[in-house]
Amino acid sequence: MTDGATHTLDVVAVGNALVDVLSHDEDVLVTKLGLQRGAMTMVDFDTAERVYAAQGPTIEVSGGSAANTTAGLASFGATAGFIGKVGADEFGRVFTHDLASLGVTFGGTARDGAGPTGRCHVIVTPDAERTMSTFLGVAGDLQPGDVDESLVTRAQVTYLEGYLFDQPAAKEAFRRAAAVAHAAGRRVGLTLSDPFCVHRHREEFLNLVERSTEVLFANEHEICALYEVDDFDAALQHVRHHTEIAALTRGKRGSVIVSGDEVHVIDAVPVERLVDTTGAGDQYAAGFLYGLTHGRDLATCGRLGSLAAAEVISHLGPRPESSLASLAAALFD
Amino acid sequence: MTDGATHTLDVVAVGNALVDVLSHDEDVLVTKLGLQRGAMTMVDFDTAERVYAAQGPTIEVSGGSAANTTAGLASFGATAGFIGKVGADEFGRVFTHDLASLGVTFGGTARDGAGPTGRCHVIVTPDAERTMSTFLGVAGDLQPGDVDESLVTRAQVTYLEGYLFDQPAAKEAFRRAAAVAHAAGRRVGLTLSDPFCVHRHREEFLNLVERSTEVLFANEHEICALYEVDDFDAALQHVRHHTEIAALTRGKRGSVIVSGDEVHVIDAVPVERLVDTTGAGDQYAAGFLYGLTHGRDLATCGRLGSLAAAEVISHLGPRPESSLASLAAALFD
Repeated sequence: MTDGATHTLDVVAVGNALVDVLSHDEDVLVTKLGLQRGAMTMVDFDTAERVYAAQGPTIEVSGGSAANTTAGLASFGATAGFIGKVGADEFGRVFTHDLASLGVTFGGTARDGAGPTGRCHVIVTPDAERTMSTFLGVAGDLQPGDVDESLVTRAQVTYLEGYLFDQPAAKEAFRRAAAVAHAAGRRVGLTLSDPFCVHRHREEFLNLVERSTEVLFANEHEICALYEVDDFDAALQHVRHHTEIAALTRGKRGSVIVSGDEVHVIDAVPVERLVDTTGAGDQYAAGFLYGLTHGRDLATCGRLGSLAAAEVISHLGPRPESSLASLAAALFD
Repeated sequence: MTDGATHTLDVVAVGNALVDVLSHDEDVLVTKLGLQRGAMTMVDFDTAERVYAAQGPTIEVSGGSAANTTAGLASFGATAGFIGKVGADEFGRVFTHDLASLGVTFGGTARDGAGPTGRCHVIVTPDAERTMSTFLGVAGDLQPGDVDESLVTRAQVTYLEGYLFDQPAAKEAFRRAAAVAHAAGRRVGLTLSDPFCVHRHREEFLNLVERSTEVLFANEHEICALYEVDDFDAALQHVRHHTEIAALTRGKRGSVIVSGDEVHVIDAVPVERLVDTTGAGDQYAAGFLYGLTHGRDLATCGRLGSLAAAEVISHLGPRPESSLASLAAALFD
């Protein structure tokens, strides 16, 4: 792959357009609702309603994993686009407003009557862990035809959210975006999103990672799930020959970046107070992709990822509240 | 007035059902939009859209002055009800969910097709001051017939939000609630809400304060506007003969409570970090009314108000995030 052609966007992301509905609740609620602690579970409307009815007071804030990453990229000063689908309702307006206010180009569509905007019910427990129940709404209706090819062609990196693999049509949209990107000589980034999602679609993910991904993001649980190993180092040895770059995150133990024979072990940036881990992986990807599209070496890309992740886990919500550009400037001083 | 009859609610509040759309933005935005800094301005739909388009990324959270007070009361452990009107849309569901999750009885109505749920665009500037632009939506359509008389009859105090005076039908609903409360031998509380609102309806407010209000809440700007005086002490001398109890707030200078010959000067509770003044008055009223409906003396009521106000200005959003019951327990230790 070459990045030689002229581009006008750093990153375009394809993902689920969601509004997060966040509450602080006790662990017992997660148990009572029968949810998988720390995971993202796709739920139907009725289950989403049951979770919502059980949540304490909530705040609503734009979310969606890949969309959060574009918000982080914008905060670093990168140019980003997003492709996804919202409904013609208030949550759809919220999602659209928040991307527009950051200068992110929204290649999504709002469809009257097609259904509601998707939402992710996030229960944040006292240990700052988040347990997510996602009702996709029209986000799950993303079709190959919804992929704005001009956006993909214009972007250095097309970044794909693994969660999309739970919807057959969205998975096709995903493959289409990758094909268009590659035809234009661009790179494709992929985040595995969730170990359970990897379990559900392991063969397809393996195929995609090995054949169509230049930049892979995964946490240790996801990468172990992909290779069906228990040990992080075993997964690392597998992945290093399968993608150009793999950025593997390990929570407070930092991240490992591997690209052929090049390996970097990057520390996490310590935080004063851990509030909510929602968006940690999304913002790590934002920092990494910002560095990558701005000519930084891989170790610096990793440090930028750690920086952005530390910012977002210090407060409630999945998108940065402070300017990541300012934080990055301090890093380079 | 007597509180001798059996009651099953401590407070029922009548107010605008709103969802707050909050952003952190620079002062220059407030100037550019031509908004009155620190005030609440009622705006039409087009102006609300203009403000929203100019705001940075937002979070959405249930608001509405009197509704915030019921949330505070619930956090203290009091029983509360709310009367207001939401639309049959997602913001309406958010508002309803959040009251229900706190155990507040919602005597409001959702009307299909009657219009959208009201929203308050709140711009929080770096000095933590908030500037509010409210598009009332169906909240402004509150009619006298919407007042749930059984709720009012059941409550020790019926608490009315001055902002309602900007809508003629809502003002009638307000008067109806007061009449029903008095007929049941209950007390009526009133907050003046905003100095500009007081200016717009001064004669009617004076009439209401002198004839129909037992517990008056106002900040120094509002009480000075009511009596057309420049000096807080002058306003104090006026009001002491006109209501049974007046609780007058003065920001970081604390509050003054006056009831006939009884006067208390209560200090503000210092905060470590002032983040967002939204909801300070609403939570002061919550603390005060909690004390009043639980047999506390007036000085203690004021201290409970200060405690609740300090909690809410320490974070973004107009409702408490910590248990006010726990904070109050520490106060009484």
